[in-house]
Amino acid sequence: MTQTASPFPVTPSDIDAAARVLAPVAVRTPLLSFPVLNERVGAKVFLKPEVLQRTGSFKFRGAFNKLSSIPQEKRKGGVVAFSSGNHAQGVAAAAKILDMPATIVMPSDAPALKRERTKAYGAEVVLYDRDREDREAIARDLAQKRGATVVPPYDDPFVIAGQGTAGREIAEDMAALGLAPDIVIAPASGGGLIAGVATAVKARFPGAAVIVAEPENFDDHARSLRAGAREAHHAAGRTICDALMAAMPGEITFAINSRLLSQGVTASDAEVAAAVAFAFRELKLVVEPGGAVGLAALLAGRIEARGKTVVVVLSGGNVDADLFARLVA
Amino acid sequence: MTQTASPFPVTPSDIDAAARVLAPVAVRTPLLSFPVLNERVGAKVFLKPEVLQRTGSFKFRGAFNKLSSIPQEKRKGGVVAFSSGNHAQGVAAAAKILDMPATIVMPSDAPALKRERTKAYGAEVVLYDRDREDREAIARDLAQKRGATVVPPYDDPFVIAGQGTAGREIAEDMAALGLAPDIVIAPASGGGLIAGVATAVKARFPGAAVIVAEPENFDDHARSLRAGAREAHHAAGRTICDALMAAMPGEITFAINSRLLSQGVTASDAEVAAAVAFAFRELKLVVEPGGAVGLAALLAGRIEARGKTVVVVLSGGNVDADLFARLVA
Repeated sequence: MTQTASPFPVTPSDIDAAARVLAPVAVRTPLLSFPVLNERVGAKVFLKPEVLQRTGSFKFRGAFNKLSSIPQEKRKGGVVAFSSGNHAQGVAAAAKILDMPATIVMPSDAPALKRERTKAYGAEVVLYDRDREDREAIARDLAQKRGATVVPPYDDPFVIAGQGTAGREIAEDMAALGLAPDIVIAPASGGGLIAGVATAVKARFPGAAVIVAEPENFDDHARSLRAGAREAHHAAGRTICDALMAAMPGEITFAINSRLLSQGVTASDAEVAAAVAFAFRELKLVVEPGGAVGLAALLAGRIEARGKTVVVVLSGGNVDADLFARLVA
Repeated sequence: MTQTASPFPVTPSDIDAAARVLAPVAVRTPLLSFPVLNERVGAKVFLKPEVLQRTGSFKFRGAFNKLSSIPQEKRKGGVVAFSSGNHAQGVAAAAKILDMPATIVMPSDAPALKRERTKAYGAEVVLYDRDREDREAIARDLAQKRGATVVPPYDDPFVIAGQGTAGREIAEDMAALGLAPDIVIAPASGGGLIAGVATAVKARFPGAAVIVAEPENFDDHARSLRAGAREAHHAAGRTICDALMAAMPGEITFAINSRLLSQGVTASDAEVAAAVAFAFRELKLVVEPGGAVGLAALLAGRIEARGKTVVVVLSGGNVDADLFARLVA
């Protein structure tokens, strides 16, 4: 990224550059509105459906931007990434387009659909035990052996700038509608998406409140924002939001998020399930649990939205058919 | 509709007028493209997702345009409609907005979701036996008793003009992209949607081939186009496309479709199920079987699409959760 006097590791112009890199290959997802949702929330609600993005989540944006930044001479060594699923697909799809070999380290309990789709993009998948092995160490070892570049899931300026293009599109589309968002909500695991989105949105709409949504107990961003320093969540178990289980905000992402985010909200598994079912029944969109956590918080009344203009990012839609069937039943 | 020298019962300017009526209330659905679909078909494919329309199908367009044409003095008598489900919801939602009472005559085997949603819009639902009772007679009797206006599901110029606004948006969006569609595919039951879409699309792109998609055996449009006159289909049983079971093209719709459509194609229930599953897994859209029949025909290779620019209308997404679960499993 360019060296500037900015205290931010990623600037709006980095996101502009990412948008140029992504233009030929990424989907410019629309901003959707639904009368049924507006009536339900009592607000002007717009959804940014990254479920419609290449690979079914926003992760392709950051992955492609990062891989495009790797110098030609290093590309034949390929890339290695660790991911519970959506970053895996993003990296695999980006590597395929750029003709680079890709190896993805995934937890053995990742959704089958995410494993299969990652393999379908031509990547090699290496499984590890989420509870007993260190995925970063496995990835580093593999990278060293193969001369490959590690593609971090969130804590990387090129990755953050790529994810920020979603926020840039939100800002552009809101401006074209003659509207200014009061609130922008996005989920966070390591915080790359919301860091990029906040950077882009607040560059154009400084008054917008950017709110991070997390699964109940997996509220490391909410805790860290309150504490003013990175804190881990205290969750002991699992959440149905398989995409949102990072223990702690990223270092680079939190340097951005600590300055730009207004607050953190959470949604319980039951609220997330209700949001997935609402999206199925009323919006006709397939949203995975982790992708629906912002919508869940909004529908559950966790955000003061009445009368406001609100944008919610639906970050991904890669959900196994059997889990989806249970959630919408 | 305006009296003109045109041999067509609905003209592009009728559709322009409908677009003005619908602008404050209907969703302007986007035109979506997906790299995974382009690669699979070997064509530039655009989807018109009417699943994102108010009520989950295109039917709201025609219903609202028709109800808006009813003179003020007749509005308090309300409206009566017969429908297997999507027209029911369209009429009920339009009546609610216009503050008119609505009674909907529905087959007792209509999907539960469609019945519930129709009631949720405040309409009275009257069930009939699809095999033994005449829904049109029931609707006429009710209308006479209540001084209500019957809202036909397709064979009405205002209904056709309303549905045509979907085609008008397709034409506008393709022009904005600098593209001309070679092929436009839409499903048909009575033929109102495709008649409106063909009218609007061919006004701007006379060279576009408009193709009607129907469930296997329920191919009354394909037969009628070949014969040059309205013919019933020969289907004995059912199809999973509950929205597409009309026995025969409409009289007014066929006066348009016989002149503007290029051909008819069909898809089997298995091909439709595969398309619904593809839309779930790859596109993250919830499409009901009848709404997916055009996509099904395209994916099954029933249309010469390679290298072409193709638009497919996904006409509705109101599918029961249990059927959807079976189709995507």
